[in-house]
Amino acid sequence: MAKRAGKSTDSAGGSGRSSAAAKAKAKETARKIEGLAEMIVESARKRKSPKMEIPIRALSNVNFNPKKAILEMGKAAQSRQFFDLSMAKKFMQTMLVASHCKNLIDEEKTSSIRGLFYLCKHDVAGTKEKTFNDQDESDPIIEDLEVTIDALREELHVYASNRGNLVGPITLVDDGNTLDCMRMGSAGYAVPSICEPDVIQFKKCGAKYILHVEKDTVWRRFYEDRFHEKHRCIVTHGSGQPTRGMRRLLRRMHDELKLPVYCLLDNDPWGYYIYSVIKQGSINLAYESRRMAVPQAKFIGVSSFDYERCGLTDDVKIGLDDKDIKRAKQILEYPWFQGKKHWEKEIRKMMQNGFKMEVEAMINKRLTYLTEEYVPMKIRDPKQWLD
Amino acid sequence: MAKRAGKSTDSAGGSGRSSAAAKAKAKETARKIEGLAEMIVESARKRKSPKMEIPIRALSNVNFNPKKAILEMGKAAQSRQFFDLSMAKKFMQTMLVASHCKNLIDEEKTSSIRGLFYLCKHDVAGTKEKTFNDQDESDPIIEDLEVTIDALREELHVYASNRGNLVGPITLVDDGNTLDCMRMGSAGYAVPSICEPDVIQFKKCGAKYILHVEKDTVWRRFYEDRFHEKHRCIVTHGSGQPTRGMRRLLRRMHDELKLPVYCLLDNDPWGYYIYSVIKQGSINLAYESRRMAVPQAKFIGVSSFDYERCGLTDDVKIGLDDKDIKRAKQILEYPWFQGKKHWEKEIRKMMQNGFKMEVEAMINKRLTYLTEEYVPMKIRDPKQWLD
Repeated sequence: MAKRAGKSTDSAGGSGRSSAAAKAKAKETARKIEGLAEMIVESARKRKSPKMEIPIRALSNVNFNPKKAILEMGKAAQSRQFFDLSMAKKFMQTMLVASHCKNLIDEEKTSSIRGLFYLCKHDVAGTKEKTFNDQDESDPIIEDLEVTIDALREELHVYASNRGNLVGPITLVDDGNTLDCMRMGSAGYAVPSICEPDVIQFKKCGAKYILHVEKDTVWRRFYEDRFHEKHRCIVTHGSGQPTRGMRRLLRRMHDELKLPVYCLLDNDPWGYYIYSVIKQGSINLAYESRRMAVPQAKFIGVSSFDYERCGLTDDVKIGLDDKDIKRAKQILEYPWFQGKKHWEKEIRKMMQNGFKMEVEAMINKRLTYLTEEYVPMKIRDPKQWLD
Repeated sequence: MAKRAGKSTDSAGGSGRSSAAAKAKAKETARKIEGLAEMIVESARKRKSPKMEIPIRALSNVNFNPKKAILEMGKAAQSRQFFDLSMAKKFMQTMLVASHCKNLIDEEKTSSIRGLFYLCKHDVAGTKEKTFNDQDESDPIIEDLEVTIDALREELHVYASNRGNLVGPITLVDDGNTLDCMRMGSAGYAVPSICEPDVIQFKKCGAKYILHVEKDTVWRRFYEDRFHEKHRCIVTHGSGQPTRGMRRLLRRMHDELKLPVYCLLDNDPWGYYIYSVIKQGSINLAYESRRMAVPQAKFIGVSSFDYERCGLTDDVKIGLDDKDIKRAKQILEYPWFQGKKHWEKEIRKMMQNGFKMEVEAMINKRLTYLTEEYVPMKIRDPKQWLD
């Protein structure tokens, strides 16, 4: 991803963001930042108070679009002004972050969100005041910038931690390396934090669908039992709540390769919420849903009805605590769960059961029960999917 | 890693534990479990109370071996008897875990520690009592089994989460897949939970040393700046405290490929402790040190003296809290830090500074300061290493 002299062959590793498409994208994003700056300069020239309009990122400004079946940001925005004591600092912080992102793009470099905080941190000239005291201040500013100029954080060349792995019949190009994801070793292909088309391209795909599981330990069960070979599918995991990188990759494989996405998650409020984020996006980052959500994703289990359906024993039960029940009730209230009778039944059944169940608990029946019986049975029978 | 019919070519993916070496290793471990079982049966035949001797895994039984420079388990052991009300349950639990591990080995399968808990959990025949109520009960039993029969958890076919990535001029074979770690994409080669020789073999190595960094976000800085290319080295990270898999891989590359290991960690008690675990092992798992520790590993930074040495500004400072100070004092007390004047100076200097510093903070100077100046300077100058 670095700027390097002329190397672009696979064996040399990494051509990535030096490609023509990447350059065009970078130019477009840089142009958006310049546009913001020019607007500010223009106001100053006209002796008007420099300001920018920042869309509001809060539950109050998040709508569920039932037609597209994703969360969307509403039209509410706040004005951030320079000549306003309560806003001047944030105004300057926004410009500072924007200017560093512009540098990153120009230099064909990326930075972590923590790194960006350190890049931006310094004394405000002539004072003992710091531009930023804490990363808690800079992270929201990055998000403000994303929504203001309509560019994803990844397009601003800023990344977070990477998490998540993949195995299956797909050949992709990542940073110039052609990778056959059927033979990437026993932990699979490591999904990076930035999965934009200028970094990752799909070359060949023989998969029929994607199975997304919650944890790496479950993923390994599928890997070891060669589920991806036997069922010609891609198996992914996100080590819990999937990162933006993982979500973006799922969305892109779904869109560009027309692969259905099936989610295998724990039977608990956390599992329901992971599904909800994959499917329609998260509340905090509603503005990203249109590029990250997979509205057609199906939840195939573990369902509250599986205890009886699969003849499980009480060895798999984990008692619900107050927090679980509170969270389950919250989820029932989300507009995107409401009016979905099957989801209402599912969540109410969990509360009625009084227990939750982990995916790994299925192993109690037999080590390979999950991979040889449970999931094949679930995928065969659309009546068992929760949508 | 699964048992499969005759496939062992690279393109088919996964031959792993089906190799001859793997089979021999599996046989040896299975034999150890059988040995334990035979001893119990023998006692019963002789009408003696069946018992086993379990080495004690506690600080009281951990010694620092100054000659080998690693932590070692002492000789203290406890007897676990069947005909003793206070021990009968643990005795049976140990046999149950052993028997499931034997099954895993025989079936050429592996299980997560959570999965093993579910495999072992059932009603005790004729009672309402469970064999295990919680994973907190089964995890220590696995460790008991490891020390009793002297087999690593990985050899018992039990894994935990995988974490950590690697990039650099090394070609290895993982589960039958030949992987050139110079071209594994922008998140690098994903290090699996089990890195034993029957799973991972080294094929070719052009690296001069290993640089181990604490976090994936720092790793990406090195990746992007092509540090591994420019300096012909392997760059690894463990996402914080490295897993057993990562530690085993570091040790094996150090031993088998004669590669020096340099650690780049945060300047805080947590960073010191990560170094200490890589170098001489952890207290809890002292019995593994002889196969996981790298006593020759060097700490190259961030050092408490770097603030002045590198001309940093107060932007990099994070104030120490009470917990940091308490932890620093604890670390000073560890026998393996004691008597090392340079470490004493290092830790005392941190307390005197009154602040800690993250590796990423170096970015405050310049985005590529870490990769282009700081680390090359550190590696060039052995006087700056902490040993």
